[in-house]
Amino acid sequence: MNAQMPAASAQAPLAFVDWMRQVQGGMEDVLDRFLPATSVVPARLHEAMRYTAMDGGKRVRPLLVYAAGDIFDTPRALLDRAAAAVEMIHVYSLVHDDMPCMDDDALRRGKPTVHVQYDEATALLVGDALQAQAFDILSAPLEAELGKSDAGVTARQLRMMNLLAQAAGSVGMCGGQAIDLASVGMTLSLAELEQMHRLKTGALLRAAVLLGALGGKTLTADETAALDDYARAIGLAFQVVDDILDATADSATLGKTAGKDAADNKPTYVSILGLAESQALAEKLRGNAHAALAPFGEKARRLRELADLIVQRKT
Amino acid sequence: MNAQMPAASAQAPLAFVDWMRQVQGGMEDVLDRFLPATSVVPARLHEAMRYTAMDGGKRVRPLLVYAAGDIFDTPRALLDRAAAAVEMIHVYSLVHDDMPCMDDDALRRGKPTVHVQYDEATALLVGDALQAQAFDILSAPLEAELGKSDAGVTARQLRMMNLLAQAAGSVGMCGGQAIDLASVGMTLSLAELEQMHRLKTGALLRAAVLLGALGGKTLTADETAALDDYARAIGLAFQVVDDILDATADSATLGKTAGKDAADNKPTYVSILGLAESQALAEKLRGNAHAALAPFGEKARRLRELADLIVQRKT
Repeated sequence: MNAQMPAASAQAPLAFVDWMRQVQGGMEDVLDRFLPATSVVPARLHEAMRYTAMDGGKRVRPLLVYAAGDIFDTPRALLDRAAAAVEMIHVYSLVHDDMPCMDDDALRRGKPTVHVQYDEATALLVGDALQAQAFDILSAPLEAELGKSDAGVTARQLRMMNLLAQAAGSVGMCGGQAIDLASVGMTLSLAELEQMHRLKTGALLRAAVLLGALGGKTLTADETAALDDYARAIGLAFQVVDDILDATADSATLGKTAGKDAADNKPTYVSILGLAESQALAEKLRGNAHAALAPFGEKARRLRELADLIVQRKT
Repeated sequence: MNAQMPAASAQAPLAFVDWMRQVQGGMEDVLDRFLPATSVVPARLHEAMRYTAMDGGKRVRPLLVYAAGDIFDTPRALLDRAAAAVEMIHVYSLVHDDMPCMDDDALRRGKPTVHVQYDEATALLVGDALQAQAFDILSAPLEAELGKSDAGVTARQLRMMNLLAQAAGSVGMCGGQAIDLASVGMTLSLAELEQMHRLKTGALLRAAVLLGALGGKTLTADETAALDDYARAIGLAFQVVDDILDATADSATLGKTAGKDAADNKPTYVSILGLAESQALAEKLRGNAHAALAPFGEKARRLRELADLIVQRKT
């Protein structure tokens, strides 16, 4: 059981939807704690960072962090920082991705994007500063907070930093964006499409799972492999479902511009496989994710439920 | 003496200009080692990262890292990583700063800027990926490389990461950029101008000095204060001299567009203080930098010489 969490193990566990809402609500407090206050100079930059980060998104990556932390009893102090860090990386990538020189999108999560609400230069700096902030909060000294009994925390933090940096960089998320840009108007094979998404969204989803776990202990090769299998399955499923929703839902439901990929002539799972086969693939990946978690038993309950959520979500 | 450096202490120390050229030349190898190869996917992104990072810049920040490392016998393995990391943060900030939504500059170090040579989206991603790469290389596991005798390296690395992240973020370099943007066309007081530059360029120069030192040991409060005094003096001097050069040199000498600040109606030391008083201020700051280093004796030789270089440079 998590040392910082009040004892709840004696009672029945929370229903998934209640656990999810608790984490999502908690993330607003966590981000509030780890983002600079708007009273700090430069106020407008900090206001814009909060405008885009604290908007009640789905918080899929923080949910994965906390769910993976359940398996290894990761201390709450580290989970909060890991969840905030991975979400800041995600949010910064959305801010930059929405800019005119990239996807040129005016609407995100139902609100004007940062460059529309503020200006392009501010959007650029908001993204840059959020990335730095992620590494700042994850590298803060925690030995005092966690006590001398947790002497290995520094080594675990450094390992987490290294994992997050690689997931965010040119052989991770940024690399995926670059491949995505280069693929507009091109015919991609299924393997090429998978590689693009494995980097663009998969790397950071994998980082979320591993950060939550690594905060608790140094993982064995078997544990890492099992979590990798899980992360690969949900990462791919996430993108397949994104493509299904982009093709079938409307903008009001999504909170962003629907049908944009098709309009931009971007290759998607739906355009390559068709709708029915895409849905079957998502379902198959959900099964793979469940199978990967078998060694962790009941402690992987939330990760299993998140695989279901990722495949069954409507937005 | 640095454990990884071949013994040179028995001979006379290198002349400053030879030491500087050795470090500058060495940085090309160090960056080559720590940047992804162009054979790695996505090749075009990695090519663009190398295009902008490996161009034989002045390498002021790496010079500060190595010079500060001299004082505390910081292991070469850590110095190389710190120097590369701080230079990658600096280079990414130039790439983003040159973009059309910021300074819209076509020339940098005598070459077309990244968004001109490639395109805007690539420039955005090059900057993003270089920032992640900086944190990646600084958080790599080094205990095997440095040996069990250096058990504290993990804690020192984490401290270095935290310092660099804060220097790069919204209360450091990015914050200074935001203040700079907001100040175009405004009349700034000398104090406001100083605060802007303390964040925009001062924070990263300070980080370079402290990273080199922190890699060797946990600093005492007195040591940190002395290095802070030095870093504050050279950080300010650096900007004052930048403004003097912008007002007096030509574009061919600078390798970038000269007179741009005045044309953009940006406040500068020269516009506020005039040329003669700006030159006197730079000289005074050089004296302050030397005074701050007194406690470190002969071991601070390179830091002293760098203060001279920063004030006396012609480009």
